[in-house]
Amino acid sequence: MVQAKTWVLKRHFEGFPKDGDFELKVVELPELRNGEVLLEAVFLSVDPYMRPFSRVRMQAGDVMIGTQVAKVNQSNNPTFPMGCHVVGRCGWRTHTVSDGSDITRVLADWPKDVSLSHALGAIGMPGLTALYGLEEVCAIKPGETLLVNAAAGAVGSVAGQIAKLKGCRVVGSAGGDDKVAYLKELGFDQAFNYKTVSSLEEALKNASPEGYDCYFENVGGHFSSVAIQQMKTFGRIAVCGGIALYNDTTPQTGPYPQLTMIFKQLKMEGFLVGRWEHKNEESLKRMLTWMQEAS
Amino acid sequence: MVQAKTWVLKRHFEGFPKDGDFELKVVELPELRNGEVLLEAVFLSVDPYMRPFSRVRMQAGDVMIGTQVAKVNQSNNPTFPMGCHVVGRCGWRTHTVSDGSDITRVLADWPKDVSLSHALGAIGMPGLTALYGLEEVCAIKPGETLLVNAAAGAVGSVAGQIAKLKGCRVVGSAGGDDKVAYLKELGFDQAFNYKTVSSLEEALKNASPEGYDCYFENVGGHFSSVAIQQMKTFGRIAVCGGIALYNDTTPQTGPYPQLTMIFKQLKMEGFLVGRWEHKNEESLKRMLTWMQEAS
Repeated sequence: MVQAKTWVLKRHFEGFPKDGDFELKVVELPELRNGEVLLEAVFLSVDPYMRPFSRVRMQAGDVMIGTQVAKVNQSNNPTFPMGCHVVGRCGWRTHTVSDGSDITRVLADWPKDVSLSHALGAIGMPGLTALYGLEEVCAIKPGETLLVNAAAGAVGSVAGQIAKLKGCRVVGSAGGDDKVAYLKELGFDQAFNYKTVSSLEEALKNASPEGYDCYFENVGGHFSSVAIQQMKTFGRIAVCGGIALYNDTTPQTGPYPQLTMIFKQLKMEGFLVGRWEHKNEESLKRMLTWMQEAS
Repeated sequence: MVQAKTWVLKRHFEGFPKDGDFELKVVELPELRNGEVLLEAVFLSVDPYMRPFSRVRMQAGDVMIGTQVAKVNQSNNPTFPMGCHVVGRCGWRTHTVSDGSDITRVLADWPKDVSLSHALGAIGMPGLTALYGLEEVCAIKPGETLLVNAAAGAVGSVAGQIAKLKGCRVVGSAGGDDKVAYLKELGFDQAFNYKTVSSLEEALKNASPEGYDCYFENVGGHFSSVAIQQMKTFGRIAVCGGIALYNDTTPQTGPYPQLTMIFKQLKMEGFLVGRWEHKNEESLKRMLTWMQEAS
């Protein structure tokens, strides 16, 4: 009889998540039926999206949502033989019985020298999010200037690096000097600490006096109001996240964007990574190649 | 010597425009040079866009911007022979000397039974705005549900009628019971007076319980915040105007739209009609045909 340790959402978050919102529960897993596999978690991920998704996709008492890299420990499913690694939407738990519908195998030719943890990062959902935001939503072109906020995060850092590979100029904002140093290491053309600049508007202007063609939005709120004013005509905004808004108990407000959007003919589009799932395998292969070429 | 009566913007509007912001001035026009024509205004237009454009495209002392239908009274330019009608960006003035760069001839086969005033309305800039907002920005499809606000206006009323021709369901909002009656005459499926409904949210829900695929935005502000919540997944918002915001002396604020845009994967795009100028002639012909088929 296999036991699984699980982190359960005891009650919905109010404001900033607290330790007491979670509860560790041990559950006994049933015997495998035909077609099922037993998974053991190798890496878990914690991503910003979990905060807003917990509100709309979870009920109190559910195991906390999330993706993991897991190893198949027992298998009654030939698609997932024992010992292979998968990425699955299993949530925060050590062991899972899966019928295979919510897991996919890690790329067959995953290189030995690349940690499987990247399957939850640059070569996983966050990387795909960055890629699709730039290619599908922004349709970014060589020579354009990209603004990324929360730029040191799993998505932002990859978005900036992909844009550099595509021949763009990249400006990143982050909330710490160590993060800013990291962005410069990654090859961002400009980076600043939004918490310590005297004026966000000035910081954005200084980083790109001629404005921005594309804006990879991870933050929302006040940052977005200031950044929209710095867009060039026909600028595109990929709305990927709104981390400044996730913990609101009452909605933050800011100036309406309509007039700026009209005069500059801006496009702003919200997206979820699952929209281009049919491209995932090819996309992951491209990004793995980029990663290997860079190292 | 020809005299032109002109309405001059004496000073920039602050808040709601006042009579005293304008001044009637009579100016003497120079003799025609080679390539020039003398125009006499037949119809002038007053459009909402003039309010925000006056701020960014005019200086105090300029003749008020605007389009007019004019007749060519004298011509030194074979493209515009005497007696022909043109549409020109001449502003609010009775007579204009033009070198031809800012005027276009009214459609050659303009029917005798259609007033030339329509060249400033449904078969002119407002009509083109409606058409491009639906076709180019929203890419609206038969069977979809469209929301239009300021729906009794020159743009909104045409947007609703075109969407009906395309086999869509159309919901319109306007600020008067007479306007609502007019929308119903025009064939809108649902129309309501936003000033008298007890709840805008309820009115939008009642008019289309399953939500909206497309939203032709002429208003902005509070209306937009409520309407965005009623969009279906993959909804498209064509941001054409923000009439609720034009007279602001301090910017109105509302809840940030990012989270809704992400979860519903909404696209919001601001546009100006001039973007598709290369399609104007063909588009005006299509709309003239629609108008004649309907009458």
